[in-house]
Amino acid sequence: MKDFTWWNPTKVHFGRGTIARIADELEAAEIRSVLLLYGGKAIFKNGAYAQVAEALTQKGIVFPELGGVRPNPRIDKVREAVARIRASRIEAIVPVGGGSVFDSAKAIAAGACYEGDAWDFFEGRKVEKALPIFGVLTASATSSEVNGIAVVSNPEREAKTSMNSPLLYPRVAVIDPSLQFTLPETQTVYGGIDIMAHVLERVLDGDAGVEMVDEQGYALIRSMIRLIPELLEEPEDYEARAEYAWAGSLAHNGFLSCGRAARGDFSSHRLGHSLSLLFDTPHGASLSVMMPAWGRYLCERHPTPFARLAEAVFDVFDGSEEERALEGIELLEDFFRSVGAPTTLRELKIEESDIERLAANASAGGGFGVLKNLDAKDVLEIYKLAY
Amino acid sequence: MKDFTWWNPTKVHFGRGTIARIADELEAAEIRSVLLLYGGKAIFKNGAYAQVAEALTQKGIVFPELGGVRPNPRIDKVREAVARIRASRIEAIVPVGGGSVFDSAKAIAAGACYEGDAWDFFEGRKVEKALPIFGVLTASATSSEVNGIAVVSNPEREAKTSMNSPLLYPRVAVIDPSLQFTLPETQTVYGGIDIMAHVLERVLDGDAGVEMVDEQGYALIRSMIRLIPELLEEPEDYEARAEYAWAGSLAHNGFLSCGRAARGDFSSHRLGHSLSLLFDTPHGASLSVMMPAWGRYLCERHPTPFARLAEAVFDVFDGSEEERALEGIELLEDFFRSVGAPTTLRELKIEESDIERLAANASAGGGFGVLKNLDAKDVLEIYKLAY
Repeated sequence: MKDFTWWNPTKVHFGRGTIARIADELEAAEIRSVLLLYGGKAIFKNGAYAQVAEALTQKGIVFPELGGVRPNPRIDKVREAVARIRASRIEAIVPVGGGSVFDSAKAIAAGACYEGDAWDFFEGRKVEKALPIFGVLTASATSSEVNGIAVVSNPEREAKTSMNSPLLYPRVAVIDPSLQFTLPETQTVYGGIDIMAHVLERVLDGDAGVEMVDEQGYALIRSMIRLIPELLEEPEDYEARAEYAWAGSLAHNGFLSCGRAARGDFSSHRLGHSLSLLFDTPHGASLSVMMPAWGRYLCERHPTPFARLAEAVFDVFDGSEEERALEGIELLEDFFRSVGAPTTLRELKIEESDIERLAANASAGGGFGVLKNLDAKDVLEIYKLAY
Repeated sequence: MKDFTWWNPTKVHFGRGTIARIADELEAAEIRSVLLLYGGKAIFKNGAYAQVAEALTQKGIVFPELGGVRPNPRIDKVREAVARIRASRIEAIVPVGGGSVFDSAKAIAAGACYEGDAWDFFEGRKVEKALPIFGVLTASATSSEVNGIAVVSNPEREAKTSMNSPLLYPRVAVIDPSLQFTLPETQTVYGGIDIMAHVLERVLDGDAGVEMVDEQGYALIRSMIRLIPELLEEPEDYEARAEYAWAGSLAHNGFLSCGRAARGDFSSHRLGHSLSLLFDTPHGASLSVMMPAWGRYLCERHPTPFARLAEAVFDVFDGSEEERALEGIELLEDFFRSVGAPTTLRELKIEESDIERLAANASAGGGFGVLKNLDAKDVLEIYKLAY
């Protein structure tokens, strides 16, 4: 295990009917005015908005609202929110939604305390100060509710990139799994694949010194392989929703990175981000396509982590290491297909002629990756394999 | 999953040569004077004392010292420390040691901010205020470095009991696994069994709604079954020490309690505490004796959690649920024996005639337990089975 610092200060209130806690926590922090940030109409249908509004009103907390944060959230909405806050006395951000709303809240929280443009943070500027975030999660996938990471797109620059600061951990996250009963089926699938990807990108990074941490990861993946089909069968199964939601928070709260040399290999996310940016592919779908292609490309020369995954998750014990590695990737791909996720660019209606552009976008910032540092040629080959 | 609140604010610096961070953190918190608390001579041999003293001196932090905290720590030492602090300007406690030193530090931290006797906290008084704790861990076992729990004995009252407060989480814990190279073999074994017990007492509590959390626990137990023998073979294997140490912190930092109806069934700890109190049995040895006896007593009428353990940890797939349950307990006991831990009261040199007294002590506070609430008769039978 490599040296690390573990620190995750977010307080999570988890369970049915816990939403009102958000107002208790704001009151305890003596916060009187918040920006209520949300995405589309889902929070009006699933009851989250009504419960948050009632709880805030009861405590006398003022909550100007801003909706319209979209999946694969964009910097222009962040700028709009920052401008609103500068003209007001808002003391905290209350995201009510999924990962895109939480991610936007973080960029807004930092942007509101900074004189320049919020996009600067995505180009490496360090966050010095940020408004506190007290959020209500309505869709599990990204772990944004329990980490300091935000991913935002800037279409003008053809960039979808991340910022990360210890100042951006939400102070409080409320997770009521019953709010997720009404998620569209695709979101249950794509969110679940995002959760799996956060784990896979750790256990497949080739680090040999973190077996105990990897075992935690394998267990999470097995749980997700059990839970996603259960929820497709019975979307209002509270127990399955709850396990799924909590797995979603654990997958990317940092604990699976502890002791890793590189904290994980996020190549599949990088490869997927270009799909989302250029073709607005849902994040989870970008991963179900790119993870297997990335694995196929690397598993012959780097079979060990894939073979270990095959054994620990899919009970593959027979054959050479290379054979087990490939079988593990095939079984993972089979699972993605079995829950209705795409596994090829073709299914995303992307043309073969788009591949060069995709590869150029993904490689624009230079090589990336841990198991193998992927250069422009590697990236092109992986997109071709994904076709 | 039942509703829960997850919050664990301790910052952990983990790795070789990280001890000096304790002084950096104290400096950042503007703390100028600390009580350096320790146990016996081990910290002078393993280098921890020298490194802490040098780091504190370099930052100009004053550190009056108090040694002599013993395993199964006692309230009299807590009182002695509290008296010292009241006569001084000490602003924080710096425990340097294992669980007993951290546990004592918590009782001292609370006691120093309270006018009455520190034992009151162990009889239910709520902690209202406490000095901050910045600790250096030199022996992994209890997770005390990352939780708000303290267990202290009061021989006058024949009581070994716990207190628990969110104010008692160490603010910072430094874990340098290389300090544990020189631990006596028995401490590696007993610490490891304590870690396993913290997990077992969750996964065996009979809660059916937390499969995903249980899977995390089974993975930790499998890791410990791999690591303890590795360390007996090669005590200076840094990787194994590091995995063991981090497993030790995860086992009882609260994350395995998330979603459980009862947060775990600590009957084996309760049964073991009476052994430690009356016969000064090492904590880990009390657990290797009492866990299997507790399991044997309950597994016929409550086979499910034991059978699941047998399957998930020991690959026992054949036979009826009752048969698998019993086989799992036998394999656990075999493992304890294989690493040299006692599994009977006889090996602890406890006489058959002591059993009544043990049972009376353990039952003094009334029934306890989750999988089954154990009354005085149950407790007596379990001690008999342990003989």
